[in-house]
Amino acid sequence: MEEQSIQVELSTAKKEKPQTDQLEFGRTFTDHMFVMDYSVTDGWHNAKILPYQPISVDPAAMIFHYGQSVFEGLKAFRTPSGEVQLFRPRKNFERMNKSNERLVIPPIDEDFVLQALKKLIEIDQDWVPDTEGTSLYIRPFVFATEPFLGVAPSHQYKFMIILSPVGSYYKEGINPVKIAVEDTYVRAVKGGTGEAKTGGNYASSLIAQEVVSKKGYTQVLWLDGVEKKYIEEVGSMNVFFKIDGEVVTPKLNGSILAGVTRDSVIQLLKHWDVPVVERRIGMQELADAHEAGLLEEAFGSGTAAVISPIGALGWNGKEYTINGGKTGEISKRIYDTITGIQYGKLEDPLNWVEPITSKAKVNQ
Amino acid sequence: MEEQSIQVELSTAKKEKPQTDQLEFGRTFTDHMFVMDYSVTDGWHNAKILPYQPISVDPAAMIFHYGQSVFEGLKAFRTPSGEVQLFRPRKNFERMNKSNERLVIPPIDEDFVLQALKKLIEIDQDWVPDTEGTSLYIRPFVFATEPFLGVAPSHQYKFMIILSPVGSYYKEGINPVKIAVEDTYVRAVKGGTGEAKTGGNYASSLIAQEVVSKKGYTQVLWLDGVEKKYIEEVGSMNVFFKIDGEVVTPKLNGSILAGVTRDSVIQLLKHWDVPVVERRIGMQELADAHEAGLLEEAFGSGTAAVISPIGALGWNGKEYTINGGKTGEISKRIYDTITGIQYGKLEDPLNWVEPITSKAKVNQ
Repeated sequence: MEEQSIQVELSTAKKEKPQTDQLEFGRTFTDHMFVMDYSVTDGWHNAKILPYQPISVDPAAMIFHYGQSVFEGLKAFRTPSGEVQLFRPRKNFERMNKSNERLVIPPIDEDFVLQALKKLIEIDQDWVPDTEGTSLYIRPFVFATEPFLGVAPSHQYKFMIILSPVGSYYKEGINPVKIAVEDTYVRAVKGGTGEAKTGGNYASSLIAQEVVSKKGYTQVLWLDGVEKKYIEEVGSMNVFFKIDGEVVTPKLNGSILAGVTRDSVIQLLKHWDVPVVERRIGMQELADAHEAGLLEEAFGSGTAAVISPIGALGWNGKEYTINGGKTGEISKRIYDTITGIQYGKLEDPLNWVEPITSKAKVNQ
Repeated sequence: MEEQSIQVELSTAKKEKPQTDQLEFGRTFTDHMFVMDYSVTDGWHNAKILPYQPISVDPAAMIFHYGQSVFEGLKAFRTPSGEVQLFRPRKNFERMNKSNERLVIPPIDEDFVLQALKKLIEIDQDWVPDTEGTSLYIRPFVFATEPFLGVAPSHQYKFMIILSPVGSYYKEGINPVKIAVEDTYVRAVKGGTGEAKTGGNYASSLIAQEVVSKKGYTQVLWLDGVEKKYIEEVGSMNVFFKIDGEVVTPKLNGSILAGVTRDSVIQLLKHWDVPVVERRIGMQELADAHEAGLLEEAFGSGTAAVISPIGALGWNGKEYTINGGKTGEISKRIYDTITGIQYGKLEDPLNWVEPITSKAKVNQ
């Protein structure tokens, strides 16, 4: 693919930035956005950084009808010295292309969109907050725009990146949550789209979330769609358990999302020589381990919270309290280490951070 | 719900209408569209008929990220006397509310949107084509518009109706297609969204369609997502088989869409005293019936084609030719009867057509 240039139109009016202690997740957006179009004849083209603004879409655009879309989520962090850095951004664009393949969306040029992201963040760098636990959430996404009601892959797409300054996920420190094992609804099944980061998976999950929150649970623990026996994910995070000194997580099986934080947790544990295994985990096995006093910790992993300790699991009318409902030692150590690396406060032994350094020339 | 009024803004420039023999499915849209907004405080409000035009959507609108959307498809037909009539429209709006429930979208007022649809068609009535086999395709749809990146049901939605004049599905008369049984990808599973008409189901199906078309098949036959043994749907249609004099179709099981045409076929067969059964159908059972010479006919049913005869099934490396690759007798009789009723050329014994008669006053 020939290297594209990025046309930049700067915003004349700057929006007011919210107080960093009042930031909510995903409600405030920065001054600019990145947009790029796809057509069969031109491929990905028309790359632009524009003032953040509504986009004009035909009501027949396929996104409104047949859900052909993928997205990613990652973050930029402000270091103590004031620099801005990204956490493993290449993993996200790699995964986006895997999602694109499943959804029959043309691939993006991973290097080019990373370059575009860096340029966008440079322009909006004042939006990267600097107080404890805050960061800039980055949302790249692709959606079908061809105005056509036939069920077929679209011939036109838009790729966009929008940025949102976000507050600390844990306002009062890292806190365990209560999770309900879901036995009615199914998130994904092998042969479906569970492995892809696509809207339909999330739309499908909303109802289960609604049901359990009424019962006082924060999220659901998804079981496999075939036998409803094996653990898959928790809410929109991957899940880990520490059983008898060994950390286990469900093996990627075609219906589980390959989380970037999941991969970071596994790599970190290996780096520390803590035993970690990816394998199939039965819900009954977990209950048995709990019964035997061997279920030592449980936590979710994801970009938003990094690590979300699980204090209790509700299943079949019983509630299983884990580690006395408190954050476990390994959960805390992983959380502190990953966030330490992300904010540039700890060494980065696995080369995860990517600084945004070059003050690239802006073409106007 | 208090009756809303519909504000009407008529288009000043009328678009050129395509030749009725050159109509494609879902590519041309009429002069007007219906739009209505939802907010938590006002419910569904702001009902308008506007000139067909692009809509302005925030890039953070949840439809682009989490796929919360539903849609419907139905048709209006021109009778020999020039009247315009709808085919079972209430069934579609009923089903839309079932889809809404699964997707955690607030319900619509079925009577009100039917009234809005009639008004919209009255305004664009010149767009209802009158040549053999043509009709006006109607696409009602709902999508999440709240600009928020959290995974939760949206607090804002848009409901729209757009209209597209469509050509005869069978340019050279009703013609059997070749279908491949899908054994890699899965459309839906019990506990998922298969029963709902939502974008994600269609996005998920695109890849399977791509694979089989390269092998010369028109569509896929979906098997159940758990055992991959039982027949569910064909492409985006329901499916029927005539085995040893009896018509059978998969029983609605939570992962199959409850097609309006499916229901019409079943009702019509009962009306004719032709044996028809809804039950689980194994793919092996079907192959055995074929082996024994008892698989007499197979066809898909849906709004676009009404009846789509299946001339051959590809499964496990074998090809099963059905009825010599020709349209079967019962397939033809159902097709002729349903289309005859739709176009007002045959009596309507089951009260399926709904005329658009009242020349309602237009508020401008």
